[in-house]
Amino acid sequence: MASIYRSLTINIWKEMMCYSDFPIPADYPNYMHHSKILKYFRMYAEHFKLLEHIRFQTSVKKVTQRPDFSRTGQWEVVTENKDGLEERHIFEAVICCSGHFNYPNLPLKDFPGIETFEGHYFHSWDYKGPEDMHGKRVVVIGIGNSGGDIAVEGSRVAEQVYLSTRSGAWVIRQVSDNGEPVDRFNSRFVHVLFKVLPMSFLNWLGEKKLNAMYDHAMYGLKPKHRLFSQIPVINDDLPFKILSGSVLIKPNIREIRGSTVVFDDGSAVENVDTIVFATGYNYDFPYLPNNAMYKSGHRVGLYKHVFPPNLEHPTLAIVGFIHSDGAIMPQAEMQARFVARVFAGHKKLPANQAMIKAVEKDTKQIEKSYVVSKLTPLQVDFVEYMDDLAKDIGVRPSLLWLLFTDFPLFKRVFWGPVTAYQYRLMGPGKWIGARKAIFTQLDRMYQPLKTRKV
Amino acid sequence: MASIYRSLTINIWKEMMCYSDFPIPADYPNYMHHSKILKYFRMYAEHFKLLEHIRFQTSVKKVTQRPDFSRTGQWEVVTENKDGLEERHIFEAVICCSGHFNYPNLPLKDFPGIETFEGHYFHSWDYKGPEDMHGKRVVVIGIGNSGGDIAVEGSRVAEQVYLSTRSGAWVIRQVSDNGEPVDRFNSRFVHVLFKVLPMSFLNWLGEKKLNAMYDHAMYGLKPKHRLFSQIPVINDDLPFKILSGSVLIKPNIREIRGSTVVFDDGSAVENVDTIVFATGYNYDFPYLPNNAMYKSGHRVGLYKHVFPPNLEHPTLAIVGFIHSDGAIMPQAEMQARFVARVFAGHKKLPANQAMIKAVEKDTKQIEKSYVVSKLTPLQVDFVEYMDDLAKDIGVRPSLLWLLFTDFPLFKRVFWGPVTAYQYRLMGPGKWIGARKAIFTQLDRMYQPLKTRKV
Repeated sequence: MASIYRSLTINIWKEMMCYSDFPIPADYPNYMHHSKILKYFRMYAEHFKLLEHIRFQTSVKKVTQRPDFSRTGQWEVVTENKDGLEERHIFEAVICCSGHFNYPNLPLKDFPGIETFEGHYFHSWDYKGPEDMHGKRVVVIGIGNSGGDIAVEGSRVAEQVYLSTRSGAWVIRQVSDNGEPVDRFNSRFVHVLFKVLPMSFLNWLGEKKLNAMYDHAMYGLKPKHRLFSQIPVINDDLPFKILSGSVLIKPNIREIRGSTVVFDDGSAVENVDTIVFATGYNYDFPYLPNNAMYKSGHRVGLYKHVFPPNLEHPTLAIVGFIHSDGAIMPQAEMQARFVARVFAGHKKLPANQAMIKAVEKDTKQIEKSYVVSKLTPLQVDFVEYMDDLAKDIGVRPSLLWLLFTDFPLFKRVFWGPVTAYQYRLMGPGKWIGARKAIFTQLDRMYQPLKTRKV
Repeated sequence: MASIYRSLTINIWKEMMCYSDFPIPADYPNYMHHSKILKYFRMYAEHFKLLEHIRFQTSVKKVTQRPDFSRTGQWEVVTENKDGLEERHIFEAVICCSGHFNYPNLPLKDFPGIETFEGHYFHSWDYKGPEDMHGKRVVVIGIGNSGGDIAVEGSRVAEQVYLSTRSGAWVIRQVSDNGEPVDRFNSRFVHVLFKVLPMSFLNWLGEKKLNAMYDHAMYGLKPKHRLFSQIPVINDDLPFKILSGSVLIKPNIREIRGSTVVFDDGSAVENVDTIVFATGYNYDFPYLPNNAMYKSGHRVGLYKHVFPPNLEHPTLAIVGFIHSDGAIMPQAEMQARFVARVFAGHKKLPANQAMIKAVEKDTKQIEKSYVVSKLTPLQVDFVEYMDDLAKDIGVRPSLLWLLFTDFPLFKRVFWGPVTAYQYRLMGPGKWIGARKAIFTQLDRMYQPLKTRKV
């Protein structure tokens, strides 16, 4: 299972995370606490009457091809309910949505002497809140979003927090220009700029803007990689915590001796009480047969990040196993729409060899554009990926058509944020409310802030 | 007694808060937690061997003129030690340093229905940490520095925090351009700009810069007053808390009914558990005789904010009763140096009538430049005030002299931050280390951040 901490607030703007035909209520905050997101999901499920189709509290133990798979494309699924009762089912098709934050990566062997550590250590997966950090000396390893959040939250009560990072990070704020949500500026216009301008110039410009907020070299954060070759860390509170010394940025750990942590630069911190491994996640689908997992580079090779390319029938899909500069929700929804088209027979996938070729091409492209590793094997460009799937489904908005037939809408689609409503304007699954949702998306940004007239 | 909360970090840069002849250690953070400030004070006291001259755990009950005051200028002081033992002393002179954060202002009568409130209410003076706010609905009244801090800290654990403000506020970040401390830009050069440019232009420019960080109107913060007519609120975390909805800005409270709080715009919040009155402080010197308290407008009229202007002898001084855009420590130190010169007879004060005239002129000037009230009766310009006292003491740095004799130092004194070392370059109390302290002040800014090589 995935795990979150009590204070977790999502780092995606509500208009960029919501499903394409169900805007988040206008008065909900721009960045939502997880409790509000759960409310939204419940509203969605009730609105579309989904609950009656879902069997809860049931885990999937095994998914295997049926003996007659070549002919039927059918799967046998073994489930277990909360009372431990196993059941076998036959399904025409299976969608796996177990995500990629379930298997904590705890690389103890990279930390010599960890077995001598006298304090308490755990993975960020186990972190719920800072209550055990009062007055403690804490080392957080890893400056991903979790590492940053835990370091900041812990530093409010700890005696001292050290945030150890091997490679550094670019850190951005959610409160962007004029106080608007940073992803409000993720528009098709910006996307075009990224296509036509040289990446070195874009990196220079973006890094200059970030460093004007706080100099990443001065703050000990500056990474070796350029800004746009990895998704930046999002943290509004970290800079002040660094400036006020409650979070000290440290290099990688060389070794651990009792309660002393020694870093690569030879500096040492003594009397460490707690080490938090914010060292990310491995992915795994232990319930799937090996032959459904086509390996490509560090990643699971999936055609359009959805379909195993080497099965005889396209009756198995992976949804939500994606990583981009946008929210998972609209991407997973788009994948689901794509899968529905394929399962329903409206869309035919290419032959296996063609799919494998496409997967290998994607892998090369990813490795060229981004810093990839075993833990971060995959990244896509949000707009490009959404548009690509949308084109296959037949719901990609035609900018040229809009330009001549509906200029006010064109303006908002081109210069405004790339909200998912854009993919409900035309084609299968068209939603009559989409145009209005686009025209009112900024109203829903302002609405929750209107709590005091000025 | 003054009171602080556990997480309190000072909002003045270490180089701008330290005493003029005792720089804060280079590796101390730029904004220090109160525990570090206490360490610094202890270092100072030990270095200058002050402890042997201080009698601790003794409270002053009464300070009165001796019967022969007209001739001797002497005071009788009644003290009480921790065992309740009273003692009478005769002193040649008295300095009162009890400050202006001792008497919480709890204006209950302005909140009709507070007596029906079913939850818990208290003044920010009593706030130590957010532990009692877990899962609660909290209303914080007042958006001063305490109100902002408590709202932000409470919002991490509360179900919802409402921050009620009658007049709004300009809110600035301590992490300023390039990530440098905001008060690092408080230079003599900027001070000259403030003298020569029209205030309306400066307000426009400053507000534009603040709104570019986050639009104060959009965030419900925008006050009626202009930026530079009141010291802004300092809070780096508040904007994200507003954008993510965990702190909701509300107008003034109209009334309280049971557990419901009704605001001036008619909106109401139900099931409120906690109300925090971050409504500031009244000042009082109950141990002083009435005739030492010369009232001028809302303020205690003090000549140069130090000496009661209506006493026969200048043997009573108030130190640290000042409010400006700079730190209290260097200002109190400068006042103390001034007092020492007067007490020692090196400096003669004007006649009573002249001092009273000067006090009334100051009051008019303050009322013209700033938004004053019973709670914020007094404000001065940091550089102007420091320079004025320094001139009287004979320690004001001569810029013209420096320009021709020591250009590298001139550059730093004119364009660099107005650190207190500048007042140890020449005159009585000159410190041989002052020049070097000025040349190394930025090194001490960078030093604590050098925890990871990039």
